[in-house]
This record gives sequence, structure tokens and C-alpha cells, in this order.
Amino acid sequence: MNRRTLLARLGVLGGAAAMYDAMSALGLIAPVQAYSGPPRISSLQQRKSVAILGGGIAGLCCAYELTKAGYDCTLLEARERVGGRNFTARRGQKLLEYDSTQVCDFDEEPDLYFNCGPARIPGHHLALLGYCKELGIPLEVFVNDNRMALLHSRAAFDGKPQRQGRVLNDSRGYIAEMLSKALDQSALEQAVTDQDRELLQAFVGRFGDLSKDGRYLGTARNPYAHGGFLEEGSIQAPLALDDILKSDFWQFKMHFAEMADQATTMMQPTGGMDQIPRAFERRIKTKILYNAPVRSIMNRTDHVQVVYTDPKDGSDRALQADYVINNVPFHLLLGIDNNFSTEYRAALAAVPAGKLFKIGLQARRRFWETDDHIYGGITWTDSPITQIWYPSTNFHGKKGVLLGAYTFSDEDGARFGRMAPQERIRTALSQAEKIHPGISGEIETGVSVAWHKVPHMFGCAANWTPSSREQYFDLLAAPQGRVYLVGDQITHHTGWQEGAIRSAHRAIEQLHARAAAEV
Amino acid sequence: MNRRTLLARLGVLGGAAAMYDAMSALGLIAPVQAYSGPPRISSLQQRKSVAILGGGIAGLCCAYELTKAGYDCTLLEARERVGGRNFTARRGQKLLEYDSTQVCDFDEEPDLYFNCGPARIPGHHLALLGYCKELGIPLEVFVNDNRMALLHSRAAFDGKPQRQGRVLNDSRGYIAEMLSKALDQSALEQAVTDQDRELLQAFVGRFGDLSKDGRYLGTARNPYAHGGFLEEGSIQAPLALDDILKSDFWQFKMHFAEMADQATTMMQPTGGMDQIPRAFERRIKTKILYNAPVRSIMNRTDHVQVVYTDPKDGSDRALQADYVINNVPFHLLLGIDNNFSTEYRAALAAVPAGKLFKIGLQARRRFWETDDHIYGGITWTDSPITQIWYPSTNFHGKKGVLLGAYTFSDEDGARFGRMAPQERIRTALSQAEKIHPGISGEIETGVSVAWHKVPHMFGCAANWTPSSREQYFDLLAAPQGRVYLVGDQITHHTGWQEGAIRSAHRAIEQLHARAAAEV
Repeated sequence: MNRRTLLARLGVLGGAAAMYDAMSALGLIAPVQAYSGPPRISSLQQRKSVAILGGGIAGLCCAYELTKAGYDCTLLEARERVGGRNFTARRGQKLLEYDSTQVCDFDEEPDLYFNCGPARIPGHHLALLGYCKELGIPLEVFVNDNRMALLHSRAAFDGKPQRQGRVLNDSRGYIAEMLSKALDQSALEQAVTDQDRELLQAFVGRFGDLSKDGRYLGTARNPYAHGGFLEEGSIQAPLALDDILKSDFWQFKMHFAEMADQATTMMQPTGGMDQIPRAFERRIKTKILYNAPVRSIMNRTDHVQVVYTDPKDGSDRALQADYVINNVPFHLLLGIDNNFSTEYRAALAAVPAGKLFKIGLQARRRFWETDDHIYGGITWTDSPITQIWYPSTNFHGKKGVLLGAYTFSDEDGARFGRMAPQERIRTALSQAEKIHPGISGEIETGVSVAWHKVPHMFGCAANWTPSSREQYFDLLAAPQGRVYLVGDQITHHTGWQEGAIRSAHRAIEQLHARAAAEV
Repeated sequence: MNRRTLLARLGVLGGAAAMYDAMSALGLIAPVQAYSGPPRISSLQQRKSVAILGGGIAGLCCAYELTKAGYDCTLLEARERVGGRNFTARRGQKLLEYDSTQVCDFDEEPDLYFNCGPARIPGHHLALLGYCKELGIPLEVFVNDNRMALLHSRAAFDGKPQRQGRVLNDSRGYIAEMLSKALDQSALEQAVTDQDRELLQAFVGRFGDLSKDGRYLGTARNPYAHGGFLEEGSIQAPLALDDILKSDFWQFKMHFAEMADQATTMMQPTGGMDQIPRAFERRIKTKILYNAPVRSIMNRTDHVQVVYTDPKDGSDRALQADYVINNVPFHLLLGIDNNFSTEYRAALAAVPAGKLFKIGLQARRRFWETDDHIYGGITWTDSPITQIWYPSTNFHGKKGVLLGAYTFSDEDGARFGRMAPQERIRTALSQAEKIHPGISGEIETGVSVAWHKVPHMFGCAANWTPSSREQYFDLLAAPQGRVYLVGDQITHHTGWQEGAIRSAHRAIEQLHARAAAEV
């Protein structure tokens, strides 16, 4: 009996082994999925017109690619700017919500900005990275995971924030220790040979940095409690497992940076995420109408009629196009006249938008670096602010902009959204005081965004459920007459720019095949 | 019986709990050790002179601090430059070994450099970070851990490199699955209550991303094998545990970035590590004699006599100083006339220097980014080159400098060291071909350094053993007459600039207390 058989008998491989073999046979095992660039579409003999509704990342991408291929494109953008949720607040910029206007008064410095929407790019988002390269957008590292940043739970460790590395290393240690004991007792399976047991023990021991007799006594993987430079180091005592279990860290916070979309290396455009819409915009400038919200979308036999508000005089104006690329959020389409099918309208109504809330705070000094030794990364808390982000650049600089809240739950987002802008900051700071005592005195100014209150947006990423996907995804991903929906909303990668771009590529490909057939 | 008691009975806390309580009582639990800056030394009434032998980081730090405090310092540096092993190769720079001279012919671009010695700064190296801030050295993120970089074992996975994230996530999964099974069988301890078992199962399940019934079937924490953008994603099949065990990854490579000195956030000075010695040098310029190797060090009753070679005419020249700061490597001191005690000399002889070897390679295009989707970080292999590092800056730029080998074993270092420079590159590339097929055609030029062959260095970090530490550390850490040894060599943090600086601070403090007493 060889080791493979033994390990299989041990039950470790279980269903996985069978799946592994099956997937190998299908050729599905690829470390990163192949991506061969945007659809290659060649100019048609007869020029076709496309109206692009909404200048989010997907709309911009379609405008860019279709213009390159010779289509006559017009992009109607309801706001004074393109980018959609990709928006970076800097000095002087207005942040509108339906019942408030904030003007960002950060100092005018290149690094004092706040990405209100997307703020990071994973290394496997190949389409987005491809455009960054093609459009010459400089990228730099975004620190998403910092073992010196903090985990804070009001329910554990007497509410004292803990360094992430310590919680992670200690959790590994305990898990490995428990398993080591179980292996020692031959608890898993009697059939395992001594040789395999020894190898598994070594594997588990290294994983959790156990002592030779299989105990977890803390680890020198953590910075030393004492010494280690001029004297012998003494290790930090392990956190109590009981405390780790009482916290909510293990539910997802301490595994956050293990996820494909969050794992190192994460990147950001130098100078703000809005470098991406700006770069698209520079290439397609003459084709964009700003402050031109769409009023109606009507499919006709051989064209689409779009009515929008003319930014010059506020009057309604009609535009005929062979096709429409529709980057308007699902829930806003319900308020625009259309002749979509009943089923299509039901689908649009079935997928609500999320309520993400974020705050950017300008600090007069980078106390997190000098006082707390945190260079970039994210601190997590079970308070409603959920996260504090530290800037990834300009280390040791004078001032810095923190992200002071980034809520994941709709309830927290709604609660912050109901507050006036100054109250949001006060509330966030009072929660942050539990982590960084004195932070309130360090913050000079701040801006916040409750996406569900932002005009022409009124929501964040689309919240699909397994059942709404089952029922409506294919319908919305297919063209409705001559109208092609785009945006991260109509992908399996909602809330990410990569989703927006992949949806744009799908629409371009479908539209072009049809246009070629209709020439 | 409460949960804490139960968990203790479960044996998980074991000795750790007792230690935890003991250390709490001693007040030793500090998330990061306090560091209050360099020693505060005030000017003496009577000016004292200090000869500083060697301009490594420790020597420079002493020169900087002692000059500030009014000491009359002279720094004797054997080479044409300061910095010691902190050396950055750029276009035009000579790399000398005793039997070869290389001239670096990288293109002249700000990011085309190669840090031949130290290359990263951890966030808990507070003394070094303090000087970066004080001396205005801009820092940026160094990507030390990239889940998209590769792990390569000739013994496993048919020799095919694997993405690190996949190996890590799958290992977690298997470990958690085994433990989950053991918990299910109540193998650990009968006394655990159902409630605790449930909580531990949940903890372990989240850790390894197990299925509801406790099996590891692969994880969506890895990038999808297929889909995930426009279609539902299908997960990558788990790697076979058997293959993971056959590799050497689990011994330390996959835990490398968990260690305090290697864990995110790691940093580097913008433009090369030698920004640090250069910044020190700018502050103390008038006090440095270059190309002035030391010939003899003699303790006298009230001074030290140092003889060095005068760079102007090659003659021997004597220098008298009240004290000496000695930054010369242990093993080189044995070749310099001295009147140290026999025991002190035996101590110097007892600690050999390591043989680290590194290669820097200029690539004509950043194929690791465009073809392999690796942005920064380290690929590990069980071939002698051991590591490949990808640059952390200028993503999507034209060219880039890779680290093509960084050996950890003295044997590998010695083997590469024996080769001529071009042969080293050929050998490294032939090993790298197993990881990046075609890499040989992408590399334009390269330089290498075998530290054990570099004049006035002849070795890398000091290799202490537990027994040599026991026998000799305290002796060498104490002044020998009026001579104070410094450098990472005489710390518990060898191979790191932080060690060098902490040793400098110790020496400054001791020397100043004595000088004040001797006024």
C-alpha cells in the first residue's frame, strides 16, 4: 500500500481526490485563467451607431473599444463626471447626497485623497490590469494585509486590540496542536503507518510551530515580547484560545487576505483610483455628454430611441442609435421609461443594490506609523465602522488620509447614511477611539459617502441571491432587443471593476457579431 | 465548569496557559516592544576622540550620533565607499571579488538597481525606521509575500511550479479537515461539551474553508479554475496532500512570510537600500577616510593607538583616540595586529561568517507581470538558486531587475562563488528555466555577489551557535579595553540592519557613560 492510498484511506483526500482526478481529465486545472485581451473587433463596412448610457467603468470601456473599432458612439452621463462609483475625493471636490453636500477640504497634496468606491486591484484581475498597462496608468502596491495592524473585538481580550500576526500565528498553533494530539492518539485511522504519521506530524508541527512534543507554546514568528536584538528574545505568550474563540476574528477577518480578490499583491493607481476613468475619458472625450440623464429607452425594429435631458437647456432631446449599451444601475432603470418586456422589468426589480458606507479622514500627523508602528493595511473591529485603512504610500510623511469606516452590512451603512456628515465623523471617531485612543484630536477634516444616497446612483453593488441568479441572470445578461446591459451588476464579480470590464467585453462581442450580421 | 476550564482540560492550552498567566503577571505582554529612540547623550565638558573602524551601518550610526554629541570622530573605511554589505549595484558600479571584477551594465534608470546585501525593512525594526524618518529617506512597500508567486519543487507536482496561494490554502484545508474529523470522533477528550465542540468545529471549519460536513473540497479563496466573472466560478481542485508532503514547501517556505522579520508590511528605501548609508554619509562627510584599511589596534592605558594605511601615499599612519568603535567583521580582526586578550581572540575566532550569494538580472521585458501575472514577491525553489524576487515598483514598466538567486546554505553559496561571473548567470538561468521557461532569452545582463569573496568583507552574517553564544557573546558585547565591538555580528539579530543599529546604540551608551566618568 503506497502513501497515496494510505492518505486516501486516512480520509484526508476524501471527495477531493476524485474531483481532482476528474478535473485533471477535463483540463480545468489552470493556476490562473487564460485571458487573451479585449475582444478583437474589426471595423465594419457600414458605420453603426451606439448610444452608451452611463459612464461607469463598463460604459467607458465600451466607448473606448467601440470607438477604436469605428463605431459612432455617444456616451450619455447623468452626472458632471464619469467613473460611476470609481470616484476619488480630493481638495475642492463636491460629494453630493440627496440631502447634503460636502466639499472636500483635505490639503492639496498628491497623497491626500480618498477613494470613495473601488480602492484596490488584485493581481488576477487581468482585464483591468491590461487596461492600466494599455492606458499608461501607473500602479503601486496597495497594502491590504499588515500583520502589525490590529484586530479589535469588544467581546474578547478585554476589548484590547491585538496585532493581527499574533492572532493568526496563535490560531495556527492551537489548531496544529489539537491535530497533533489527535494524530498521536491514532484517532484518525488505525491503518496509518508510523512513517506517514511521522511525516504528518512534521507537516503539522511546522505549520503551527509546535514544540518537539507537539505542544503550542507561542512562537518566535511573532515579534519578541522582550529582547531579540541585544539579548536573547523571549517569545510573546500565546493569546488564550478561549479569547480567540470569543472574538469574531476567525469568522472571516483573519482569513480576509487569503481570498483571491484580497490576497497580496494588491495594487492601486498612483494618485487615486480615478486615474482609470480619467485615462479612458482622455481617449474618448469628444463623445461624452455630461449632465445628460436618460429619460426613456425604446426598442424599435431597427434602432433604439433614447430620450435624455439636454444639458444646455434642460429640454428633452431624442437620440437614435443602432444599439444601446446600458450601464445604468438595475434599480434606476425602473424609473426610466422603457418598453422592455415584463419579465425583464421583473428581473431588474429583483436585484436590490447594497448600501456601502465609507469615510475618509485627514490626520494632522501619521500617528499610526510613529506611535503604533502600522504601515498600511487594515485594522478590523466589531464596531460598526468595521475597518480602518492606513495609507500605503508616503510613509513618514506629514499628514495622511485614513479610511475611517467601511461598512459591510446594509444595516450599518443605512445607520451611518441617516446621520449628517459631521455626525458620521464624530460617530466613527468615537468608535475608533477604542482602537486608537486620542484619534479624535488628530483628525482635521473628513468626508463620507453613503452610496445609497448619491444622486444617479442610489446604491452600491447589486445584491444577487442564489435564487435571483437562477431565475434572472441569463435574461439580464442577454440583450433586450437592441439594448445590452453592462456593469459589474450583471456579472459573478459584483463590486469589482474587473466585473464591469468583463461585462463590457461580453457586450462588445455580442453587439459586434450582430452588427456584422446586420450590415 | 466554564469554557476556559474545558478548553484547558482539552489540553489545548496546556503549558501555554500557565506561561500566559506568568507572563501577564510580569507585564511582559507587549504587542510591540517599546523603543524610545537613540541614546540621549549630551556634550561632555571635555572633548573626547573616537576612532570608528569600518563604515558599515553600525559604524555610520555611531559616527552620526557621537558627532552630534560633540565627540571628535574619525571613521576609517577600508573600501572606497561606506555601507558595508548595504550596497546597491547600478549602472557603472564595480563589484569586486578577489579573483574577478564585474562592472554593472544595467540601463541607467531609477528602478534598475540591485540590492546586493540587505533589501527589506520590517515594520517592527523601529530603530532603523526611526533613522529613515530622521534622515528623510523615502520608503515604499517591498512585496515580500505574493500569493500569485510560485513554489517549485523538483520532487512534487511533477516538478510543475504552483501558485503559493493555492498551496497555502490547500494545506490549511487538509489540516483543518483532519482536525475536524478528530473532533467529530471526540478523539481529543471525552469531557468536551457539545457546545464547545460545535464552536471548535466552526473555528476550524472557517480556518480551512471546510464544507458543512467537515470536508476539504478545495476553496473559492483560490482564484477560480474557470468562470467567476461572467459565469458561475468553479473552484480549483485541491492539490494532492501527498504532493504537498513530497515538496519541501511546508518546512519553511510557505511559512516564511509569517515570521516577524518577513511579515507584511515590509518596506524598502525608494531607489535602493544604499540610500541609508548615503544619508548617514551626507551628515558626517568630513570625518571619513576612504581606502584606509586598519593595520593594528592597540589598547593603551588612557587611549587606543590605531594604525591604518594612508590612502594618499600607502604609508602606515598612526591615530590616537580615547576610544574605538570597532565595526570590522570578527574574522577580519584576526588578521589585524592587536593586543586583545587571548580569550577575546578565541571568541572572535569561534564565530564564522556565512556565505550568502545573490544575483541581479536585468530583463528586457517584465515577462513575470505580463505572462505570469506576478507583481512583486518571491518564488521559491528547491534548486540551488533558492529564490527569484520580482521588483516591487514600476509595475508594467519596460525593463526590470530580478533577483535570480539568493542562496541560504553555505554550500550553495560556496558552489556559486567558485564559478566565474558569467557561469553563475548561466547556471542560475538554467535552474530558473524550470520555473520560467524562456527566461534565458529575456535576460540582457546580470551581476552577482559572493560575499565571502569580497575584499574587506570575506563573509556575510556571523554564524553563532547556541554554544558559541553561551561561551562568547557577553565577552564580545563588552568593551575590550577601550574598544567597543559593533555590527549586527554582535547581536541576536544578525543579518539585519536593525541589529547593527541596536549594537551601535549599546556601544554609544556604554562609551558615553565611561567618557563622562573619565572627564
